[in-house]
Amino acid sequence: MSDLKHKILERVKSDLEEIEVALEQNLNPYFDLVSQIAGHILFSGGKRLRPLLMVLSARISGYDGSYDKVFSTIFEYLHAATLLHDDLVDEATLRRGKPVANSIWGNPAAVLVGDFLLARSLAVAAETKLPEVIKVVSNITEHMSQGEIHQLMRKGHLDLTEAEYMEIIEHKTAVLFQGTCCSGALIAGVSPEKTKALSDYGFNLGIAFQMVDDLLDYSSDTTVLGKEVGADLKEGKLTLPVIYSLKSASPRDRTLMENIIKNTNFSVNDFEVLIKMIDKYDGRTYTQSLATQYVRRAKEGLSVFNNSETKETLLMIADYTLSRKF
Amino acid sequence: MSDLKHKILERVKSDLEEIEVALEQNLNPYFDLVSQIAGHILFSGGKRLRPLLMVLSARISGYDGSYDKVFSTIFEYLHAATLLHDDLVDEATLRRGKPVANSIWGNPAAVLVGDFLLARSLAVAAETKLPEVIKVVSNITEHMSQGEIHQLMRKGHLDLTEAEYMEIIEHKTAVLFQGTCCSGALIAGVSPEKTKALSDYGFNLGIAFQMVDDLLDYSSDTTVLGKEVGADLKEGKLTLPVIYSLKSASPRDRTLMENIIKNTNFSVNDFEVLIKMIDKYDGRTYTQSLATQYVRRAKEGLSVFNNSETKETLLMIADYTLSRKF
Repeated sequence: MSDLKHKILERVKSDLEEIEVALEQNLNPYFDLVSQIAGHILFSGGKRLRPLLMVLSARISGYDGSYDKVFSTIFEYLHAATLLHDDLVDEATLRRGKPVANSIWGNPAAVLVGDFLLARSLAVAAETKLPEVIKVVSNITEHMSQGEIHQLMRKGHLDLTEAEYMEIIEHKTAVLFQGTCCSGALIAGVSPEKTKALSDYGFNLGIAFQMVDDLLDYSSDTTVLGKEVGADLKEGKLTLPVIYSLKSASPRDRTLMENIIKNTNFSVNDFEVLIKMIDKYDGRTYTQSLATQYVRRAKEGLSVFNNSETKETLLMIADYTLSRKF
Repeated sequence: MSDLKHKILERVKSDLEEIEVALEQNLNPYFDLVSQIAGHILFSGGKRLRPLLMVLSARISGYDGSYDKVFSTIFEYLHAATLLHDDLVDEATLRRGKPVANSIWGNPAAVLVGDFLLARSLAVAAETKLPEVIKVVSNITEHMSQGEIHQLMRKGHLDLTEAEYMEIIEHKTAVLFQGTCCSGALIAGVSPEKTKALSDYGFNLGIAFQMVDDLLDYSSDTTVLGKEVGADLKEGKLTLPVIYSLKSASPRDRTLMENIIKNTNFSVNDFEVLIKMIDKYDGRTYTQSLATQYVRRAKEGLSVFNNSETKETLLMIADYTLSRKF
């Protein structure tokens, strides 16, 4: 475990434990099958980053109630719901080193349990009795589905632009990070300025997080990553490292890359050639440096807050986003 | 068109027109594909019964604002979302005489557009700024997904009991009708007694509506119904007419019926034999009489309201539920 990760985990250990308890207690499924499927996606080594961000955002905003952990489940349920649906949409095989739920229980069950988790997320959101939080949650859901639809529509299209990529990751990832931080501020009732600062922190962090996620698809190995390396490309998803390199590649290299990408059954060897091409045109360096910029912006967003342990933790999480290996 | 239907439509003509406009205006999809798929399910001859019930419930509760039509879209979007997901879950072929969305655009798009419609429903619910309404909507979603999961788990099981059937239709249908009527009362801010009365009206109407729906699967023909006759059974769904008859059938007749049901590819001839058996053991009469009881209860629920044109319309809708042909 990296040093930074270790330090963060030490600081948030008891928060994470309480989030875990809240996730179990708020689930309330009527049927064993729902418990099984929801449990498969919810309790399989997720990082709990989203609920943690809400808890920390509430704390830095001066929240002194006792419902932050309960409310933070909103964002883990929402996240789990979209994972269930996305694995089906993407025809993925592995998630966190385990077969995806729909491959075990079938598409119908995965769709319905995803709906159930989404409903749970809303039910908890309704418990906040804060229309702004509910608006945030419905907004996230809307953006995420549209982001996924956009991605689906552009699957396999080699002319996907960087601008489109940015729009997709905004919708499918950044808006959720933004919403979870913003909701922490909202339950604390902090000033609009600080609420905005936390929203911005979450948004920029989310963008960086997704960029690093997309990078990992080209750098990690399956055992560490818990899913197939190159899975994005096999699903026809072009992400920034490829998009950037394709744009600046010589016609000949571009054709070489395109031929590998078009054959979604590419070999390990092909994939290595592709990575060489990506590196030749700085696709990974560019993505990493852009992610670094977004992390810097995320951290800058917190400047309106006085120094505190919580602020430090949020800054450390931002830094960790860049160095994570899975 | 039946006389009763004609009378109801005359009374609610302008409401239905305004609901239609609200449905279009609140949709706001970012992509053509979403418009197409959402439009396929939303604008294909739905009865708009759910939003209409909200509008009428608000009116009988003295609502004098101008957002009832907008808010009523919550329940049509929610309904459409579940239809998209259910058609995928059920592997249905036809809906309202048209191929189901997932057979045209594929499962991934149908799942995501369903999620989008669910999110739209919530976004409009959040606009009410009434936590109670939002709680109702999240409750409905939760119940519906669990009802569908229950049905999925018991698919093809010949020992499904009447009690289980009741539980399933409560969750998958009645809770939505209940919620739409209840929300009408909530936006009007009427007394808890009247809110409860409208909730009960909706709940009982929903039960009756689903029973008649299940009956139609054994009585109508494909052209009128807009979907395959006997489709429920082909999908392995046992509904009350069959459940009731199976229970009281002689061992020999029961075996005969079970053999037809187990073969989900049964012929038209087999289906006719099955209907004869159902009628021999009063499965349809029983279902119809139970639906009639629920309609009576629905109407009784409205006794706390003074007579008015709106009350009459709600009573007529309850009666119509029993006589509808599709």
